[in-house]
Amino acid sequence: MSFDRLIEKIVEKQNPTVAGLDPKLAYIPEYIKEESFKKYGKTLEGAADAILTYNKGLIDELYDIVPAVKPQCAYYEMYGWYGVRALAETIKYAKSKGMFVITDGKRNDIGTTMEAYAIAHLGETDIDGEKEEAFGGDALTVNGYLGSDGINPLLTICEEKDKGIFVLVKTSNPSSGELQNLEFRGDETVYLHMGRMCEDWGKKVVGKYGYSGVGAVVGATYPEMLTELRGELPKTFFLVPGYGAQGGGANDCKGAFDQNGIGAIVNSSRGIMCAWQKIEGLDEKDYAKAARQEAIRMRDDLKSVIGEMKLK
Amino acid sequence: MSFDRLIEKIVEKQNPTVAGLDPKLAYIPEYIKEESFKKYGKTLEGAADAILTYNKGLIDELYDIVPAVKPQCAYYEMYGWYGVRALAETIKYAKSKGMFVITDGKRNDIGTTMEAYAIAHLGETDIDGEKEEAFGGDALTVNGYLGSDGINPLLTICEEKDKGIFVLVKTSNPSSGELQNLEFRGDETVYLHMGRMCEDWGKKVVGKYGYSGVGAVVGATYPEMLTELRGELPKTFFLVPGYGAQGGGANDCKGAFDQNGIGAIVNSSRGIMCAWQKIEGLDEKDYAKAARQEAIRMRDDLKSVIGEMKLK
Repeated sequence: MSFDRLIEKIVEKQNPTVAGLDPKLAYIPEYIKEESFKKYGKTLEGAADAILTYNKGLIDELYDIVPAVKPQCAYYEMYGWYGVRALAETIKYAKSKGMFVITDGKRNDIGTTMEAYAIAHLGETDIDGEKEEAFGGDALTVNGYLGSDGINPLLTICEEKDKGIFVLVKTSNPSSGELQNLEFRGDETVYLHMGRMCEDWGKKVVGKYGYSGVGAVVGATYPEMLTELRGELPKTFFLVPGYGAQGGGANDCKGAFDQNGIGAIVNSSRGIMCAWQKIEGLDEKDYAKAARQEAIRMRDDLKSVIGEMKLK
Repeated sequence: MSFDRLIEKIVEKQNPTVAGLDPKLAYIPEYIKEESFKKYGKTLEGAADAILTYNKGLIDELYDIVPAVKPQCAYYEMYGWYGVRALAETIKYAKSKGMFVITDGKRNDIGTTMEAYAIAHLGETDIDGEKEEAFGGDALTVNGYLGSDGINPLLTICEEKDKGIFVLVKTSNPSSGELQNLEFRGDETVYLHMGRMCEDWGKKVVGKYGYSGVGAVVGATYPEMLTELRGELPKTFFLVPGYGAQGGGANDCKGAFDQNGIGAIVNSSRGIMCAWQKIEGLDEKDYAKAARQEAIRMRDDLKSVIGEMKLK
């Protein structure tokens, strides 16, 4: 259980970014939607079909330069079980292209229920002796509000299957401080406390490059806290949202990385997915090429700040 | 936006309980599994088919005496998109029988992503002008770690569609205090702070019976905190897990109710679902009758403590 596989992919591609796949219908070119609606009508099934086509097109243009994708469950659930089927097929497709898949579900519960989520998203389901992968992601985002009872069931499966989790620590949104910034015992914040729990949950299994399989979500929109947390949590790998559309720049992300240029992966969703909508006169069939262009720009932007990424 | 519809069903049936539908394969009688596996093999599809049959059998025996069901998403996701299809069909079936459906997903995210979850589970999805319900529950459990940005998108849809949410406040598990019991500003705990945020989020729309559409999850396993929170949060309706299998009894739940015997709904999952496994010599085909028996016992147990439920 570690993020070794992810770190190796990042270093190989010299790219510490993950492409978020949050496929709202408004982001999908008309020609794709038309084709799907022709087959299935303007239905949940039609929308889900369009999403899958759109995602596959993006993955085809990204897999050789971007190490990971992060599908956000909400945008699939919005299209019912058809959408969830498109999620499963997107994960399968991305993995077939060698990408590391972070399923962004922010799941949370306790005991056997959390175990069910862990099996669903990272493990294998036992059906009276026969085993099948339900979704098969490489990592899952989770919410630690329920404490160790909500995290321990994940660790067992992460160890067995060499998977990882990212726990929400300091999120990128404006109101994240309402709870996360509360200070107790005089000076420790809720987010730092949560971060320390991550460090503790992960301490048993630390990978080759110094990071455990228990990562933390820390937003680029709070760069000082990002730097603070990097210092406090040396074994915790970061998933950093907030770059691009949410306002964070490369310099805001810098504090997430260690002296080898590793320790974090920065997400961009709309920035990459919707790049095609910002280029005037672009043929919408080139939507994925525009995504590739933006992914390269983002990679170079981050690299200019963090330098070369090295496996120690 | 309120829990008026739920409260009316509770009072009509004189039963403040919700039956959790957490259908692990181990809980399902052999004859149901055999039939499904004969059709689809020991596959995710076969398991999902068995779950749906099992759930429908339970609902048929419960709908006239129990006001609500609470399917737990994890146990459906464990069987992949087939399982999620069984979830959608379970919700539809329970609603067709007049039950109030609480989708237990503990979803959480920010902005448009949280809006997508709200649309998925409580609203209607817009597919280029055509509208469809993706899942169609009446209420959704959510996690408030991200603050108002993660709750506000739900409120809009709850108001439009007369739906509700339950925010995790003080959960029933042993480790819930690791984060939730932290004290800041000298004496206020994280759980009380979260509870006060619920009271605040709900204050705009309070229903006929004094409760808003923003409820709180508070475990029966911490009866003193349950009583404390009832006093502090007069407009917040409670979803109370922890009765039965987790160790809570009727007396532990008492503090959740107001002087009219309303203000809360108590969940039992395994207690009801697995009742058939505890009766020696029972024909497994009577699994749903055993569930009914246990639901009646639980109803009478709670009623003996809280008395008659009245709409003021």
